[in-house]
Amino acid sequence: MAQVPTEQWAQVIEKTGGPVQYKKIPVQKPGPDEVLVNIKYSGVCHTDLHAVNGDWPLATKLPLVGGHEGAGVVVAKGELVDDIEIGDHAGVKWLNGSCLACDFCQQSDEPLCAKALLSGYTVDGSFQQYCIAKAAHVARIPKDVPLDAIAPVLCAGITVYKGLKESGARPGQTVAIVGAGGGLGSLAQQYAKAMGLRVIAIDTGDEKKKMCLEQLGSEAFVDFAKSQNVVKDVQAATEDGLGPHAVLLVAVNEKPFQQAAEYVRPRGSVVCIGLPAGAYLKAPVFESVIKMISIKGSYVGNRKDSAEAIDFYRRGLIKAPFKVVGLSELQMVYDKMHRGEIAGRYVLDTSR
Amino acid sequence: MAQVPTEQWAQVIEKTGGPVQYKKIPVQKPGPDEVLVNIKYSGVCHTDLHAVNGDWPLATKLPLVGGHEGAGVVVAKGELVDDIEIGDHAGVKWLNGSCLACDFCQQSDEPLCAKALLSGYTVDGSFQQYCIAKAAHVARIPKDVPLDAIAPVLCAGITVYKGLKESGARPGQTVAIVGAGGGLGSLAQQYAKAMGLRVIAIDTGDEKKKMCLEQLGSEAFVDFAKSQNVVKDVQAATEDGLGPHAVLLVAVNEKPFQQAAEYVRPRGSVVCIGLPAGAYLKAPVFESVIKMISIKGSYVGNRKDSAEAIDFYRRGLIKAPFKVVGLSELQMVYDKMHRGEIAGRYVLDTSR
Amino acid sequence: MAQVPTEQWAQVIEKTGGPVQYKKIPVQKPGPDEVLVNIKYSGVCHTDLHAVNGDWPLATKLPLVGGHEGAGVVVAKGELVDDIEIGDHAGVKWLNGSCLACDFCQQSDEPLCAKALLSGYTVDGSFQQYCIAKAAHVARIPKDVPLDAIAPVLCAGITVYKGLKESGARPGQTVAIVGAGGGLGSLAQQYAKAMGLRVIAIDTGDEKKKMCLEQLGSEAFVDFAKSQNVVKDVQAATEDGLGPHAVLLVAVNEKPFQQAAEYVRPRGSVVCIGLPAGAYLKAPVFESVIKMISIKGSYVGNRKDSAEAIDFYRRGLIKAPFKVVGLSELQMVYDKMHRGEIAGRYVLDTSR
Amino acid sequence: MAQVPTEQWAQVIEKTGGPVQYKKIPVQKPGPDEVLVNIKYSGVCHTDLHAVNGDWPLATKLPLVGGHEGAGVVVAKGELVDDIEIGDHAGVKWLNGSCLACDFCQQSDEPLCAKALLSGYTVDGSFQQYCIAKAAHVARIPKDVPLDAIAPVLCAGITVYKGLKESGARPGQTVAIVGAGGGLGSLAQQYAKAMGLRVIAIDTGDEKKKMCLEQLGSEAFVDFAKSQNVVKDVQAATEDGLGPHAVLLVAVNEKPFQQAAEYVRPRGSVVCIGLPAGAYLKAPVFESVIKMISIKGSYVGNRKDSAEAIDFYRRGLIKAPFKVVGLSELQMVYDKMHRGEIAGRYVLDTSR
Repeated sequence: MAQVPTEQWAQVIEKTGGPVQYKKIPVQKPGPDEVLVNIKYSGVCHTDLHAVNGDWPLATKLPLVGGHEGAGVVVAKGELVDDIEIGDHAGVKWLNGSCLACDFCQQSDEPLCAKALLSGYTVDGSFQQYCIAKAAHVARIPKDVPLDAIAPVLCAGITVYKGLKESGARPGQTVAIVGAGGGLGSLAQQYAKAMGLRVIAIDTGDEKKKMCLEQLGSEAFVDFAKSQNVVKDVQAATEDGLGPHAVLLVAVNEKPFQQAAEYVRPRGSVVCIGLPAGAYLKAPVFESVIKMISIKGSYVGNRKDSAEAIDFYRRGLIKAPFKVVGLSELQMVYDKMHRGEIAGRYVLDTSR
Repeated sequence: MAQVPTEQWAQVIEKTGGPVQYKKIPVQKPGPDEVLVNIKYSGVCHTDLHAVNGDWPLATKLPLVGGHEGAGVVVAKGELVDDIEIGDHAGVKWLNGSCLACDFCQQSDEPLCAKALLSGYTVDGSFQQYCIAKAAHVARIPKDVPLDAIAPVLCAGITVYKGLKESGARPGQTVAIVGAGGGLGSLAQQYAKAMGLRVIAIDTGDEKKKMCLEQLGSEAFVDFAKSQNVVKDVQAATEDGLGPHAVLLVAVNEKPFQQAAEYVRPRGSVVCIGLPAGAYLKAPVFESVIKMISIKGSYVGNRKDSAEAIDFYRRGLIKAPFKVVGLSELQMVYDKMHRGEIAGRYVLDTSR
Repeated sequence: MAQVPTEQWAQVIEKTGGPVQYKKIPVQKPGPDEVLVNIKYSGVCHTDLHAVNGDWPLATKLPLVGGHEGAGVVVAKGELVDDIEIGDHAGVKWLNGSCLACDFCQQSDEPLCAKALLSGYTVDGSFQQYCIAKAAHVARIPKDVPLDAIAPVLCAGITVYKGLKESGARPGQTVAIVGAGGGLGSLAQQYAKAMGLRVIAIDTGDEKKKMCLEQLGSEAFVDFAKSQNVVKDVQAATEDGLGPHAVLLVAVNEKPFQQAAEYVRPRGSVVCIGLPAGAYLKAPVFESVIKMISIKGSYVGNRKDSAEAIDFYRRGLIKAPFKVVGLSELQMVYDKMHRGEIAGRYVLDTSR
Repeated sequence: MAQVPTEQWAQVIEKTGGPVQYKKIPVQKPGPDEVLVNIKYSGVCHTDLHAVNGDWPLATKLPLVGGHEGAGVVVAKGELVDDIEIGDHAGVKWLNGSCLACDFCQQSDEPLCAKALLSGYTVDGSFQQYCIAKAAHVARIPKDVPLDAIAPVLCAGITVYKGLKESGARPGQTVAIVGAGGGLGSLAQQYAKAMGLRVIAIDTGDEKKKMCLEQLGSEAFVDFAKSQNVVKDVQAATEDGLGPHAVLLVAVNEKPFQQAAEYVRPRGSVVCIGLPAGAYLKAPVFESVIKMISIKGSYVGNRKDSAEAIDFYRRGLIKAPFKVVGLSELQMVYDKMHRGEIAGRYVLDTSR
């Protein structure tokens, strides 16, 4: 086993608004119920940029090491940890830890724990070489799974998979994915297909259409920019014209939301997993009641969802294109993200 | 068995906007899968006034006999009807019939059937002495249940009971009822208690407070007009301060709806059963996602919900105060309703 | 539209024990809620032989026309039937009709209706050219589905699909199928895969092993005759060694049943869909309680299950090998069945 | 806060078969994730006698301090424990701890954890004055709940409540309780009523009949010793004669089990919570399939079930008669238990 150094490279935010600084900081020691993970790769998520910018109504730790899609190797562990070993591969997720004892943790809703620790937000995250996480919460990563490829699955993959589970759609039923051509949407289509669901992709542009229909398993594509009537076109894309059993909104703003409430099948569900600041869910009462629809918010997955999402990946059912750059280049990634220039996911190699 | 006459008294609307006319019309004959019910009593629901006034985005039959809370005796039946007998007591509900074969009927969601017949709206209803209904849909009323008292349960009771079922709240959990002091709210509190739920009543005024806490089984009352902070007060009324597991909105307008999304417990549900014209469900995306709440529309009950709601009444667990007047006085009831002067339910005696 | 004749060819059993007689009988007329289906093809199921032989504790109609996997064309319908048209393709299933009004029909459990009509058992079935069925119950068969190929799906396919739904196994979880190499088992493997499940096939023989692993989508095969320890081998075939989430028993006898209770994962379910006369479910109380397992009986599907099972077939996800012979050759099929010589399904062509 | 002594009184088993010895032993110190509970009262459960006698196919720790219904006060806690305070009231249950990280713990099925610690079985239990338990697992007991009265609820109450939840019976539906007159059965009736269920008590003797009908809330009583036909009588005790929606077997042996499978309503469930050594669940395949019944084992509750069961007690809905004797008198209680002389629950006062 490689020796754990006392110092390491990390990307640190000193104050809200940034910038991130690439510098050496001390390596922490795990507490009795924690592990120290030597992060090999970490995905960069839009949430990381929200953390830098202080966009959300929840303050971050400062100074802060961001990152919550870290994949690496366990190099140290506390005295109470006996179900993960030094050398095992592990993932540091958004949910770094939770109390495991409150009403929500008791019902497997750890993401709702009031004492939840959030990687790269309320505790230091995966944009460093050695990261602390609660042993009960690190994702177990089988050794046949490449650590660079799994990194983006640890947040984006788990989140869309959870949203699909929350939708209640059963194998053979149809789900519409709004924002299908983006990073979350691409993963969502593949998870949906692996779960036996049929997919209607909603996005815009011929390139995305081709990708959704030919590579990502969707059976229909509705171009919201070209369609004369999105509601009618989505419903027409279902076998009986009554609309999809569920809708997954991965890029919410108010308009798609209201459309979803209109085209979803009676008794169907509209699941919202994005977190746009200041947006509102909105739907007409009369139609929502008459159609008995459900509108649901879905946050990140719990530990079981995480294990399942990783397992679908491991079985070769999910492809998530990504581009590797050095940890030192994080600011460049943020700049591109800020300018909306990112297609696919960036993954940071912490060794450079 | 009393002979069925060829003519009967009825209240008829000739054109949208009314008025209703009390006059003699022919008695119809049941089709092969229908029964003819000699209505003894019929409740008057706010929906009947909506039908007269044409408030909703769905046209009524014209001329129209309104009414969908009719309780009476089966006096004739079609050749295919073999599970209900002449002399049995039966209820004519909002859902007069449905196709029993479509995707929704197949999954026990008859209220969502596109071919559903609506009593007093798309087919003639219970404001007449002899009313036709599909045999598979009339409510079976045990003979130990008084026909006047059960009439309002046939719409209001079933609807709130269904809403409570849809909420997903389990025995021992807490449900907040918004508009608890009204007709639907009063029934909802009693059904909730009979289902093992704990209730927080939300309404205004000391009289309603007293009634909710002393007669209707609620454990807490929040006066939305006097409260400095409804959200905090509702949450404080739960054991652990985390808010009720479900909220039932029986008198929706936009403000209570947004509050409900705020005070409902994480993973909780907000169920909307009212049908105010033009209102919108609205909730902040960020909090809804982080808390993983569900917002649901609940329409009327299906046949099983109806049988269950009647059974709770039969067991003596539900009291619904009502006032009996003659069928001939329907216009007077509408006038009071229009002026907001009705407390409790009016029930029409079709014999006068 | 072809004219309906007054006489037709049928296979008739005059008395329990048989034999079947191929002869001309009158064509019936549909009642108000019925359709007359010109059967083109009918599968032959083991149940048909049970009916001939009087194996079950439930008497058949006599004289009886057997058959409950009939696929054909609607040629007449009753006055109340308005959701299926002359010329539509339809399937006559085991469940020929039900009351649509009892407690079980109300909750979509039509197979549990005490007044259920059973094709080829309590009413005449599909071993004739023109068969009566309740309109609400005939399967709607899309016109792009071949009528010969769909016939066996109408009983065997629906039944295994229902059993898989009842198992509660979710996409990504594992189901063990006992009797995987037989007719029901072959279908079950394919449905399971289409539903996103992972399959362990349990049966015996290298030919079956090859078929299960290479053609039917199973990921593992346990040969119960060669295995030293079936319980250990089945558990070892799951990722974490804790056993499959569900077990589907398509060919029950007591031994496999007890093994299933042992190797199924804690909290898992053992679903039994076969109907061997005189057999018992049996499991040790201590282990069943400690592991919190469920043991369930699953009968045939309801109408929605049927529509879904047909849809999976229509989408090309299910292959069911079959051999076509003339209706006149039914006795030969029974003889083979009796001698255990049938591999795959026989389908009768009613035109010869 | 009272000082924690270094020595304490305990009842210790040195070898399987007993006897228990009342003697002084050292007080242990809690680990980082543990609490030390000063046990005030402990119930005595039949399981404790099974542990002494080595009746089950699972070895106990030796020497062993038995007991798993301990109620007391937290007097020390480890460094990681921050959601329970010194001075809080807490309960030591059968499930002393679990890994909180395995597949079962992740899905709130802690009782299925392969690393579960069992109080008074694999770790020392509540028959001592100071007992160690995992902080995440001790029951939180509100201070308005008497510690002597809650003790028996900590195992018996939680177990029957869990069984009722597992049954799937909904408010307004009927559950039959077999062995209603015993300790578990008495609690089960009260929980069932509090959950909005209707109860048929099954047991024997006029005294038990009177108690079940007049004190414990059952609506019907079937005396299995006097009944000519238990199956018919139980079904006749339901409104429509179709049988109860669920059956809870608290005192299983094979005969009641088979009867339960016969009288349970189609689609109903038979839940078994007892652990008789060597007994088998047994039910006829044909009827189980045709009726689509479920047979389930239910073990002890998880942490959430425990909190809920305690809350029902706290609200005054459950009465559990008990008799207090000194911890020093445990052998006398075992002797009575062995001779079948116990009615109601014995609770030990650890101060004498």
